Formats: sequence, C-alpha cells, structure tokens
Amino acid sequence: MAASAGPEIERLISLLAKLPGLGPRSARRAALALLKRREQLLVPLAASLAETAEKVVSCSVCGTPDTRDPCAICSDGARDNGLICVVEEAGALWAMERSGAFRGKYHVLGGLLSALDGVGPEHLRITELVGRVRGGGVREVVLALPATVDGQTTAHYVAERIGGPGVEVTSLARGVPVGGDLDWLDDGTIVQALKARRPA
Amino acid sequence: MAASAGPEIERLISLLAKLPGLGPRSARRAALALLKRREQLLVPLAASLAETAEKVVSCSVCGTPDTRDPCAICSDGARDNGLICVVEEAGALWAMERSGAFRGKYHVLGGLLSALDGVGPEHLRITELVGRVRGGGVREVVLALPATVDGQTTAHYVAERIGGPGVEVTSLARGVPVGGDLDWLDDGTIVQALKARRPA
Repeated sequence: MAASAGPEIERLISLLAKLPGLGPRSARRAALALLKRREQLLVPLAASLAETAEKVVSCSVCGTPDTRDPCAICSDGARDNGLICVVEEAGALWAMERSGAFRGKYHVLGGLLSALDGVGPEHLRITELVGRVRGGGVREVVLALPATVDGQTTAHYVAERIGGPGVEVTSLARGVPVGGDLDWLDDGTIVQALKARRPA
Repeated sequence: MAASAGPEIERLISLLAKLPGLGPRSARRAALALLKRREQLLVPLAASLAETAEKVVSCSVCGTPDTRDPCAICSDGARDNGLICVVEEAGALWAMERSGAFRGKYHVLGGLLSALDGVGPEHLRITELVGRVRGGGVREVVLALPATVDGQTTAHYVAERIGGPGVEVTSLARGVPVGGDLDWLDDGTIVQALKARRPA
C-alpha cells in the first residue's frame, strides 16, 4: 500500500491494523497520530506495551490478566469464595466490576465453544473451573456469558459439567435493558422479557 | 472505570484511547486483544513502536516521517525537483504516492491554519516551504490540501506567501470522484464540477 512510508512505519501500520476496531485505513491514521505525538503518545505507548508484556500474567486461579498471581480479586479476602461468576473474557469481568453489584470471585473461560471456529472445551479454562467447583466451598456459579448462540452453547456445556449436589448454577436474567426503548429492541429480547415478566 | 484491571492495564487502555478511531470502549477491546495475543501482537507492537520512536525522524527538507534524513523521496534523483506537492500530513502524501500519478517532491505542512484551534502560520512548516521555493529551481507548487474551510484558508495563505515570478501555484481539481454517483454527492462538489465542466 503506502510503499513510501518505509518498512518500519509499514510494519507499525500492519500491526495496528490487527487491533479490533482498526482497519488498514484507521491504522494509518493511528500511525500518523503516533508519529505526530511522539513524546506524548508514541514513547509512552511503547513503554506501556513493553511493561504490560513483561508484568501482566494470567491469574492461575481465575484467568484474569493482572500483575499479581493470584490476581487482586482472587486475593481479596472480603470477597465471597462461595460464589463464582463465569465470563468469556476479562472485558466482561471489568464490566461486572464497574456495575459494583457482584462481590464474589470470577472465572475467565478465555473464549466460547464454537464448532465453526474449531474451539472445543479443551481450548477453554473449563477443567480449571470444574476443579475449583469440585474443590468444595462453592455454592453458586453465575454464568454471565453472552446471549448469543455460542454463548448459550457454552453456558449449557459448562452447566452440565459443573452441576451437582450442593452447587446451584444460575444465569444472568434476560430482559429489557435499563433505558431500553422497545422500539429499538430485537424481537428475541422482547420475547425473553415477556416470558420472564414479573408483577409490577 | 475498570478499576480491577490494575494500573498497568488501565494505563495501556487510556493510551490506546488516545489513538484516532479508538474510544474508551474500543481501547478496552484492543487491550484485551493485545493481552490475548501476547506473542503475536503485544510484543511485536511494543517492539515496532519502540523502533519507530528510535529510528523515524521528520525529513529536514520536506517533513515526511522516515528513517532517513533527507527522506527516501527527497533523496530520489529520478524525481522532479522543480515540482513540489504541498500536503497537510504524511497520510495525504501516502495517498498521492499510492496513486502513482505524481513524480515530483513533497512538502508536509504538519497541519492546517485554524483560528479556532489557535494554529497560526508559525506552527506549520510554511517558512521552510518559502525557503525551498525561493531557493530556486521550483517551477510549480501543487497545493493538495483538503477541500475544507481550514484547508482552503491554508491554501490561500500558502499561495500568497510563495507566489511570485517563475513559480506557478496550482491546486488539485475539484469535481465528481471516480465512481461517484451524483445522488450521493454534496451540493458543493456538484457546483464545483459544473463550473469546471469540460468538453466530453
């Protein structure tokens, strides 16, 4: 493409283009912004990435990326060990944490089962989850997986693997999101919200 | 925001969010993708940014970012020294180069005049351009600046500064883009294309 940009900048552009949300064109714009703001952006971002690569590891208990192992959440004695929330990725964990509504522990699967993409149970941290649940002391596992086909397939599989006496497996409720206008909602959500209707 | 992600990841997210095209949410997604693809993406991107920060400089002649100074284009003896194309940023230069239609030299202004953003002539590489033109041997300067208010203000100002005997100052033609459907074009473009109409 931009042959005149030189191999270093070309390489930077092609790496930036691999980030979700950036395509070849926006990667060029991002590279330009980095070149223009060398001291404020390029140098700090290079350092931050290097530091992340060096220091951040996956928590051996729950799979969350953190500089500590076990991570800050797993090491937090004030959190409920009997309650585990299962998420696809750390992004969902961060969203749960922002809500401030969950005070248990987490388990990051690292993906979803997908026949199409060839992702089987052995690619996800499911055995580790079974181990944690079988280890005892866990009374409830909340499945906070996406409301997609792959998400629900995974939830079903995980529920089968970990279900047993003394362990309740639950899922996040489906319904109309807060601030959600019915006009803009898909039919599936409306069906689910209607099925799960409650006394007002 | 995502307080549980730890300070290193928080810092990475806030730096990524400064890239054009990425907001706070997509920066989180990008950070996750980097953490997930450590060896294929995180480490190479860190190295590429560090290499860019270390090696890439602005060409002292034309302002293009390159590892050489003067840059590859300025050092190219096969290019026409008498023809200079003035662009806002290196991105426009790369676009011109991809077109393969220009065989002269470039001059990167590094921005556009903008009263609103407080960008005056002293913030752009205009004195350097005047110097190159006054230095002699330049017979034409092509202004390839955006067809926006700031772009046209800048073009007007640059034309006034460099115009003189022996130097022709031109602008890229305005008109219907190739593949452009009239239905989708703004009125301004249609007016310009009509004014500049040519025998078919």
